[in-house]
Amino acid sequence: MKLKTISIAGMEKRARAAFVNSLSGFKSANLIGTSNGEGATNLAIMSSLTHLGSHPPLFSLVIRPGGDERHTLRNILETGVFSVNHVTVDIIEQAHQTAARYSSDESEFDAAGLNPVWQGGFRAPMVREANVRLGLELRQHMRLEINGTHLVIGEVVLACVPELACRPDSSLDLGAAGTVALSGLDTYHNGGSEKRMAYAKPDLPPRQID
Amino acid sequence: MKLKTISIAGMEKRARAAFVNSLSGFKSANLIGTSNGEGATNLAIMSSLTHLGSHPPLFSLVIRPGGDERHTLRNILETGVFSVNHVTVDIIEQAHQTAARYSSDESEFDAAGLNPVWQGGFRAPMVREANVRLGLELRQHMRLEINGTHLVIGEVVLACVPELACRPDSSLDLGAAGTVALSGLDTYHNGGSEKRMAYAKPDLPPRQID
Repeated sequence: MKLKTISIAGMEKRARAAFVNSLSGFKSANLIGTSNGEGATNLAIMSSLTHLGSHPPLFSLVIRPGGDERHTLRNILETGVFSVNHVTVDIIEQAHQTAARYSSDESEFDAAGLNPVWQGGFRAPMVREANVRLGLELRQHMRLEINGTHLVIGEVVLACVPELACRPDSSLDLGAAGTVALSGLDTYHNGGSEKRMAYAKPDLPPRQID
Repeated sequence: MKLKTISIAGMEKRARAAFVNSLSGFKSANLIGTSNGEGATNLAIMSSLTHLGSHPPLFSLVIRPGGDERHTLRNILETGVFSVNHVTVDIIEQAHQTAARYSSDESEFDAAGLNPVWQGGFRAPMVREANVRLGLELRQHMRLEINGTHLVIGEVVLACVPELACRPDSSLDLGAAGTVALSGLDTYHNGGSEKRMAYAKPDLPPRQID
């Protein structure tokens, strides 16, 4: 393919956001469910959930300063919990709609047409239409001085997944779960065709499994 | 779909890693290129690159403590730069092979069969076979006390992308670029079919574009 060098510095603000958000590759698409102390629910789509470790099972979430996402951050800091719900092919439109800037007295669950479920006594709402639903407890919060974004670290304390997506080695078949990936700011992808590779070892060539 | 609740606490170590690594959804698959002060190159596949902001264009990388990834961290701290190269459908096997634990005197470029390119005078090696290649300068490094992982924050100072993947709005068509997504520890996915959504607004229903 013919490549070209792009000067980010010269880009207009909206073009720059579209370009830079494309540069990391495919991203997760998750709905983050929270509630405030009075039980008012909030739901926000985010693409920044990142694995920090498996023992304990820790994930980080980057929350940009300003805008509606502050409701999510405020609720997490107030209640100490949040839910993570995979966006699936069936709820792309509803999930994307949660990014609209609703006023604080309107729940994105109602506005987007998704249903909260309070599962197993967990204190943050999960999404009934999601096939993978996680409950996380806040473990650490820090503000990154470099650009004011917030890093929220949570530990998974509840994990509900589809039976048919569970593989023998305990990994999940995300295609079977209907989970989608996100690219840039607005493009949702189903899992597509896949290639599974065996554990890499220095003295063996790459081997495909399945 | 029928869901089931999984108890992570009771899982054996390898099963737990496979399960927890599946929980965040699809991840990016990037080859991180570095060199040490003597010019010896290193290449490591990572799935943790996360967008922190577009102005300036900042990304974070989570590097686990221990293992081969320390070569990458040590090189970044020594030289202050690293490259990010999207894994594409054509180099899945080579990219996966960089995860093998090679000794420090062997370059993963040679071992996996990929070629370094020193582009535009940038001081970290990029991958000639990659279609999206980025040069980043280290801006911040911190160790997260909670589990000893390292958070590396870099700013994009050089971006090379395929002409045919550039959309009019400056976003990238990652499917056209051949970029793949990763799920769990070992499964690579092409972009699959996609659905592009218009900017979400509270007073408008979700609208598909394209």
